[in-house]
Amino acid sequence: MINVLVWCEHEQDRLQDDVKAAYPEYMHNAIANFLKEDPNLNVRTATLQDDPETCGITDEVLADTDVILWWGHIKHNAVPDAVAEKVQKFVLNGGGFIPLHSAHFCKPFIRLMGTTCGLRVDGFGKHVINCVRPGHPITKGVPEEFSLPVEERFIEFYDVPQPDELIYVTGYETGRLFRSGCAYFRGRGKVFYFQPGHETNPTYRDKNVQTVIRNAVYWAAPNKD
Amino acid sequence: MINVLVWCEHEQDRLQDDVKAAYPEYMHNAIANFLKEDPNLNVRTATLQDDPETCGITDEVLADTDVILWWGHIKHNAVPDAVAEKVQKFVLNGGGFIPLHSAHFCKPFIRLMGTTCGLRVDGFGKHVINCVRPGHPITKGVPEEFSLPVEERFIEFYDVPQPDELIYVTGYETGRLFRSGCAYFRGRGKVFYFQPGHETNPTYRDKNVQTVIRNAVYWAAPNKD
Amino acid sequence: MINVLVWCEHEQDRLQDDVKAAYPEYMHNAIANFLKEDPNLNVRTATLQDDPETCGITDEVLADTDVILWWGHIKHNAVPDAVAEKVQKFVLNGGGFIPLHSAHFCKPFIRLMGTTCGLRVDGFGKHVINCVRPGHPITKGVPEEFSLPVEERFIEFYDVPQPDELIYVTGYETGRLFRSGCAYFRGRGKVFYFQPGHETNPTYRDKNVQTVIRNAVYWAAPNKD
Amino acid sequence: MINVLVWCEHEQDRLQDDVKAAYPEYMHNAIANFLKEDPNLNVRTATLQDDPETCGITDEVLADTDVILWWGHIKHNAVPDAVAEKVQKFVLNGGGFIPLHSAHFCKPFIRLMGTTCGLRVDGFGKHVINCVRPGHPITKGVPEEFSLPVEERFIEFYDVPQPDELIYVTGYETGRLFRSGCAYFRGRGKVFYFQPGHETNPTYRDKNVQTVIRNAVYWAAPNKD
Repeated sequence: MINVLVWCEHEQDRLQDDVKAAYPEYMHNAIANFLKEDPNLNVRTATLQDDPETCGITDEVLADTDVILWWGHIKHNAVPDAVAEKVQKFVLNGGGFIPLHSAHFCKPFIRLMGTTCGLRVDGFGKHVINCVRPGHPITKGVPEEFSLPVEERFIEFYDVPQPDELIYVTGYETGRLFRSGCAYFRGRGKVFYFQPGHETNPTYRDKNVQTVIRNAVYWAAPNKD
Repeated sequence: MINVLVWCEHEQDRLQDDVKAAYPEYMHNAIANFLKEDPNLNVRTATLQDDPETCGITDEVLADTDVILWWGHIKHNAVPDAVAEKVQKFVLNGGGFIPLHSAHFCKPFIRLMGTTCGLRVDGFGKHVINCVRPGHPITKGVPEEFSLPVEERFIEFYDVPQPDELIYVTGYETGRLFRSGCAYFRGRGKVFYFQPGHETNPTYRDKNVQTVIRNAVYWAAPNKD
Repeated sequence: MINVLVWCEHEQDRLQDDVKAAYPEYMHNAIANFLKEDPNLNVRTATLQDDPETCGITDEVLADTDVILWWGHIKHNAVPDAVAEKVQKFVLNGGGFIPLHSAHFCKPFIRLMGTTCGLRVDGFGKHVINCVRPGHPITKGVPEEFSLPVEERFIEFYDVPQPDELIYVTGYETGRLFRSGCAYFRGRGKVFYFQPGHETNPTYRDKNVQTVIRNAVYWAAPNKD
Repeated sequence: MINVLVWCEHEQDRLQDDVKAAYPEYMHNAIANFLKEDPNLNVRTATLQDDPETCGITDEVLADTDVILWWGHIKHNAVPDAVAEKVQKFVLNGGGFIPLHSAHFCKPFIRLMGTTCGLRVDGFGKHVINCVRPGHPITKGVPEEFSLPVEERFIEFYDVPQPDELIYVTGYETGRLFRSGCAYFRGRGKVFYFQPGHETNPTYRDKNVQTVIRNAVYWAAPNKD
């Protein structure tokens, strides 16, 4: 059994009609729900709204967590530094961390990478997600090429360290592209950044996206000796 | 269930008294036996003695194999190029390959690495096996430092590509050392080289060595979609 | 002074009108000529036509060579295995090797990589060459994004080991893409594969392509102690 | 011409007799002096004593700096966060950074790595420095194995990201070891951590250590287009 915590800032999906239209059940639930279909995953959620100080990531919760998924966008700065540091230590001590989409700018990821984690945004359009490391456990059951009709385009230079394992690169009709599936070992833990998931696109309902994320949870889970 | 094939040249353990003393049940059986204790592993053996042309690695056997372990030393050249090529393709198509000790010079490994795979031998002595990537699945249940009382010392420069994942480095009382646990993705498959296992030392009876090898089998097993 | 050997099979540029139109001076000369503009490079050429046995790569030539550039396409098999092995050893002993475009299938590169080096060809079109490792010496003086109007599209999965340094990824209007600038350390030498350069496109006249290749020569040159 | 800034905390070499005995000219000068022998390097020094707020690393100085070397030990916390952030940005924007010995715990390195950068100290003894990537420019002119009679032993697990280029591993008579020469690309810049250099050992007078550090300055220097 892997204990999973899905964390979202839960801001735009409360306040913006277009986001509520895409995810009426809220984003954290959208992500948690497809993970809950797997009986080996014990899935909980927490959000920035739970408590401004802890963001719902209490020591008690963390002690029972193996892997954290993180979605944030416009409220990165509302996460206290102490929480970001706690998540960073959670990873370095062996935990798994899976920042999604605009969480490239969340505080724990920036701390873990040591770089700006900056990128360029280049509008919206079709995403073609190209696997460059087939056979990796994160790719299990996913076609080596799949696409999303409309998503927000992030483009290079993506200022992160060269991934320990570069798994996906997403291309666009512009010829520009983005390293969209990046796996890192950090301390005794693991990090997998995965790019798809803009708040107004129903990306987390895509079966391939769901499979990649579910696989990443298994990959990122700590050794239990 | 993972289908495992333990391949050994089965030469010295037939003909040399000191090797027979260390492994009276033969080396392939010594390795197979501790893997067989795991009910999720379906373990078979094959040796150079089975058939000079196929070395026991027939198309039929290969079709039912997920991971190959390989031990060879003085009969590398007796393995036909066609067999080496077959094993190389098996890996590139998704299979797992775990060359052990002096199998750094086996034909399939040299083909897969693209380098000489040369190293220097520096006598025998205590091995201290230092983990440099704790948290990796291959290290599960193994202390971050463990030792073997006497083993053959391989030392750098080990002419292999920089590992995708360097997991163990073994040090000696001489201050010299060897990258002893090296993981590679090649094609759609995976390779893990592990250094311990000289034919006159009872290394494959060591619990930590057994655990590393067992973990490596799980790590190297292909995705089954 | 770096001693550079530009090797081409020199087949299509002798026999095909469309290739002669693109490179009337022949491809090896086209590549050698822009390198010769750099006074620190001592540039020679050799081709398959020089001699079927040595391909012009004699021991004497090799002894005075620091970096080999290699362009081949339809005559890979005409290169004797002994020549391929000689080039492989040249690299492992410290030499630089820069296979260009369809030389992904040349014998020395396949030997050095240990994989099939296969890829998929997907017609022709605009190439957008995206830098994913700015600051690397191979990128010096080159915009972080540049394009070629028409080139042959290679697409993933490109069956090479994960590069030690992934520098360029080329994207197309199809959303597909290709890891087009891949740097490897092998043995004591260095390898840089660079994708642009189809025989009917005037790609080697592009200033950015020339700069990348020239930079790669400097990067791949051996330490001279 | 490469503009080099040698930064030291300049604390123990002012106050401790044993350190003054090893480096009567002070540590920053000891390091600067051997670099100054190279006419292509323009070498300056700065220390924590210059100014508590800037530590001598003013915007003006930084604007004329290509590579920073950093030695610190007991006064890491005296470096203001603003200075650490400035150095981090200097690297991400293309600068070179070479932390030495106990500077594994300096603020800029910890920020750039994203990990604790922790290690274990295991007394003093002979260091055997083993090259695992011969041919790399940082190794130019240095034997593939060299030793120091007495130095402080750092041992694994060294909690840094897997290096982009692991160049040296140091072994001890205990069989324990340490990844002592670790190269990283971060942002548009480069980082090389090198372990030798305890304040009471005359390590910076060793010719091989000097050569490695000088090579690292060249390697880490930014592209000047």
